Amino acid sequence: MLLGAIEAGGTKFVCAVSDLELNIVERISLPTTTPEETLNAVYTFFDNYTLDALAIGSFGPIDVNKKSPTYGYITSTPKTAWKNFDLLGALKERYNLPIAFTTDVNAAAYGELKHGAAKGKESCIYLTVGTGIGGGVVINNKVIEGFSHPEMGHLVVKRHPDDHFDGVCPYHGDCLEGLAAGPAIEGRFQQKAFELPNDHQAWDIEAFYLAQAAVNYTLTLSPEIIIFGGGVSKQEQLYPKMRQYFAELMNGYYATPPLEDYLVYCDLGDNAGITGTLLLAKEAIK
Amino acid sequence: MLLGAIEAGGTKFVCAVSDLELNIVERISLPTTTPEETLNAVYTFFDNYTLDALAIGSFGPIDVNKKSPTYGYITSTPKTAWKNFDLLGALKERYNLPIAFTTDVNAAAYGELKHGAAKGKESCIYLTVGTGIGGGVVINNKVIEGFSHPEMGHLVVKRHPDDHFDGVCPYHGDCLEGLAAGPAIEGRFQQKAFELPNDHQAWDIEAFYLAQAAVNYTLTLSPEIIIFGGGVSKQEQLYPKMRQYFAELMNGYYATPPLEDYLVYCDLGDNAGITGTLLLAKEAIK
Repeated sequence: MLLGAIEAGGTKFVCAVSDLELNIVERISLPTTTPEETLNAVYTFFDNYTLDALAIGSFGPIDVNKKSPTYGYITSTPKTAWKNFDLLGALKERYNLPIAFTTDVNAAAYGELKHGAAKGKESCIYLTVGTGIGGGVVINNKVIEGFSHPEMGHLVVKRHPDDHFDGVCPYHGDCLEGLAAGPAIEGRFQQKAFELPNDHQAWDIEAFYLAQAAVNYTLTLSPEIIIFGGGVSKQEQLYPKMRQYFAELMNGYYATPPLEDYLVYCDLGDNAGITGTLLLAKEAIK
Repeated sequence: MLLGAIEAGGTKFVCAVSDLELNIVERISLPTTTPEETLNAVYTFFDNYTLDALAIGSFGPIDVNKKSPTYGYITSTPKTAWKNFDLLGALKERYNLPIAFTTDVNAAAYGELKHGAAKGKESCIYLTVGTGIGGGVVINNKVIEGFSHPEMGHLVVKRHPDDHFDGVCPYHGDCLEGLAAGPAIEGRFQQKAFELPNDHQAWDIEAFYLAQAAVNYTLTLSPEIIIFGGGVSKQEQLYPKMRQYFAELMNGYYATPPLEDYLVYCDLGDNAGITGTLLLAKEAIK
């Protein structure tokens, strides 16, 4: 039996075929251009296989509400060619298969839960901090979706006392993403985040915002672990500061797992998304 | 078949017996004194019945982690007689039955989902705003519990621009509960919340904090509905202001259900907790 997975990102589509044990048979990376062009390349890839199920982990926002008339659509993305595009519908028309559909970060959270940093657990949050901030959540072994999927990158946050930067979120200005994604660090200090020295104040500010978000996610979801991915999260000096701010903000109110095991960098790195998407394809067979 | 439910609150224990359709056979309210005294009264009540399952919706924080050695305990409550008390263990020793154990607010959320304002939905948040603030969450038809249960009343919040009150939370000072529970309103204006006129600034400040919390819960969980209970939530003038602040803070970022249907007062009132607890007892039979 064969599984297909599409990790549909804003700059590239990663497609993979694997067996039920997730051994990769073939994998390809395609540039995200127009829906027609990109999907034609996707079809060319998958047409070589007889799949048993397919899953899509997509950039968003997307409509994951099965009761909605636009279920399966990419909705309000700034990438105009993809706005209101029926991604799931296009694939359903091409392939008569069970097809799972969720966000790229929900898929990554699921991948980390089953094969990565949250292995053996039943819940986790996966937060990617890079050009944007996005989060996926698994609770009771299932990705969470209600009327929509989490958009936890846009949390309302309290200011770091030394931070007077306006923020870069086009919707909210100074939400979490507006103050803590890569472009915010660059905008605040007029220098690329990865070029800033490890002891620069930028990382103190960054750790404060990420810790605050982690506290609020913890109070709301009490996941067993919070896993960070994405470019900014690769900065190792963030973690001790983040854990310190987390402890200060929580102030002993309730006992979390030890913070070295609770606020961690991902295990699967750039493979979290495709791994989780393949796993969701496997689930879709049932 | 008969179900038993205990809504274990800090001031009273409500116990009920019902049939599988939740028709109440008998119901009693007992004062919360010491564990020994209160539980003896609980036993006297339930000993008259042959139950098929029991559920407990308890004040907290409690340990809901089945892998933990203190699963079923009330943990860090300021009510010293109940601190580190094995509530579930005591009941398991008395009654050889399946016994479900969760928070009072998780039970209330479940009650509202199955029989109240969230009927027909698969997810909801129930937020009680009274002498404290606490929240319960149901996602995919199940109450959420990870390493613990939500403690969403203690969210880190951004200040209302006109609010310079220190806050009353003994752990965090100016967290959500510290700034928006009943005692915070009273502390800020030196007057009982329910005595303040409907057009008092207090309600604008209150609506701002509750809206901000609702935005952050929405971004993190995307529930189908957020239901308010508790004394402060009975103030009807809060809802239009809360919905307005919610819309301003979200700023069109993602489409929620219409706010009149999304941020609502509970249907079951004071019966949410016992209803949900009976339903969880019914689930425990399986």
